[in-house]
Amino acid sequence: MTANLNAQLGSNWKLTLAYDGTDFYGWQVQPNRVTIQGTLADTIESVMGERVLPQGSGRTDAGVHAREQVASFWLQAGIPEANLQRALNRKLPESVRVLSAERINAEFHARHSAKAKTYAYRLWRAEICPPWEARYAWALNWPLETERMQQAARLVVGTHDFSSFAATDPDLAARRAGDNPDNRDDEDRGGNVRTIFESEWQQSGDLLAYRVRGDGFLHHMVRNLVGTFVDVGRRAMEAEELVRILSARNRREAGPTAPARGLFLHRVEY
Amino acid sequence: MTANLNAQLGSNWKLTLAYDGTDFYGWQVQPNRVTIQGTLADTIESVMGERVLPQGSGRTDAGVHAREQVASFWLQAGIPEANLQRALNRKLPESVRVLSAERINAEFHARHSAKAKTYAYRLWRAEICPPWEARYAWALNWPLETERMQQAARLVVGTHDFSSFAATDPDLAARRAGDNPDNRDDEDRGGNVRTIFESEWQQSGDLLAYRVRGDGFLHHMVRNLVGTFVDVGRRAMEAEELVRILSARNRREAGPTAPARGLFLHRVEY
Repeated sequence: MTANLNAQLGSNWKLTLAYDGTDFYGWQVQPNRVTIQGTLADTIESVMGERVLPQGSGRTDAGVHAREQVASFWLQAGIPEANLQRALNRKLPESVRVLSAERINAEFHARHSAKAKTYAYRLWRAEICPPWEARYAWALNWPLETERMQQAARLVVGTHDFSSFAATDPDLAARRAGDNPDNRDDEDRGGNVRTIFESEWQQSGDLLAYRVRGDGFLHHMVRNLVGTFVDVGRRAMEAEELVRILSARNRREAGPTAPARGLFLHRVEY
Repeated sequence: MTANLNAQLGSNWKLTLAYDGTDFYGWQVQPNRVTIQGTLADTIESVMGERVLPQGSGRTDAGVHAREQVASFWLQAGIPEANLQRALNRKLPESVRVLSAERINAEFHARHSAKAKTYAYRLWRAEICPPWEARYAWALNWPLETERMQQAARLVVGTHDFSSFAATDPDLAARRAGDNPDNRDDEDRGGNVRTIFESEWQQSGDLLAYRVRGDGFLHHMVRNLVGTFVDVGRRAMEAEELVRILSARNRREAGPTAPARGLFLHRVEY
């Protein structure tokens, strides 16, 4: 019975992907827009002759990059793992790479099964941002007190309601109404409470990078945290205010949204 | 008299530039093409109201990058150095940055005054080239014996006729006929003899980089050297053959031209 069912359903696949989000309208399929999910679906179809919608560990917005995004989908036809990886990489644009392709147990789902995610955000701290960094960093030449930013970053570690850092996206409700429930993002899983395990800034030459690891992230949450930490760093706000902002559960209390280009989905853990 | 002449001529300027060449048809102005020289000329005109043709230390081809290119030009109007730099950077695309702008003695000419140039060529040595490296490296996953490549690279140090490594460009003569003599490249300065001071490969993780410093370079010379060294590395040729190839003075004796994307004009010395 199980064997018959599997023969019918085929195999569940897990892909690990890297991408440069600059030239994409984000992860999620949209009509008449080039997206990562859509490009991946088209490429899988051209290789395998099957139309599937790969499920990501979460959406990434337009311009956001991934060092390691994970996607899962079912394929009826069989193909060796290395062959699928090679065939996809041959047909995908250079801005999207399949780092690994593996068959995985039927229960695995890139989003539902995710236990933790790490994001990295890159600030470029020099008067001139080299052209080859411009797509991958927020060039910010204001004076910033990194000690204060570090202090603020540590205050969000733990379990909190992150409503103050969630996007207040007027189109979101409308877009959701038409959404395939299988294509929903992190922020749909009820409530805005998330647990942050690590939250830290690190300087290395002209690069000032923020790394945050948590059990999940609301829409725009990392970019809103970074915008707020930058406000703290330039003395527009005290580090301690993070506590008040969190408890306010009001987006207007936090700082601005940092640009997409500096953000990388760094890793997804299962 | 000199004072009057200078008042009339204005000042001689030296700019140091970094650029990502991916989206440009090379350095040199061409009709209906976006080039670095043309973009820079347009930007100078929009800032200063004067039409000048900045002279580069040499042309770079379409897709070739510069960590430090140097350009010179005369401006009649005066402007503080820092203001010119800032104004240009505000108007230039992010893929071109002015690293410095300085007034310089009247005799200075970005090409004629150059004493030495350094180029760097980047090979990416992994099965997967990360999307953010793809624009800046030749992704080459063949087995390569770097010891052999090092040996070959050292054989070109010294003064040689590099005709075997010069582009045999059918359009070049035609293009030159219409050329402004002030806009000629390195390869026009008579003969194909150049002196190479340093020529070396260095491995660092997945990056295998070639650095070459010399008193001048022929058109495509670095890319043809790299293509030949790669042939040596993959055992299509012996390192010692470099000696024979140099003495043949025949482009057909050397290896293929490496892709533009891996090449950086690294530094110009005066």
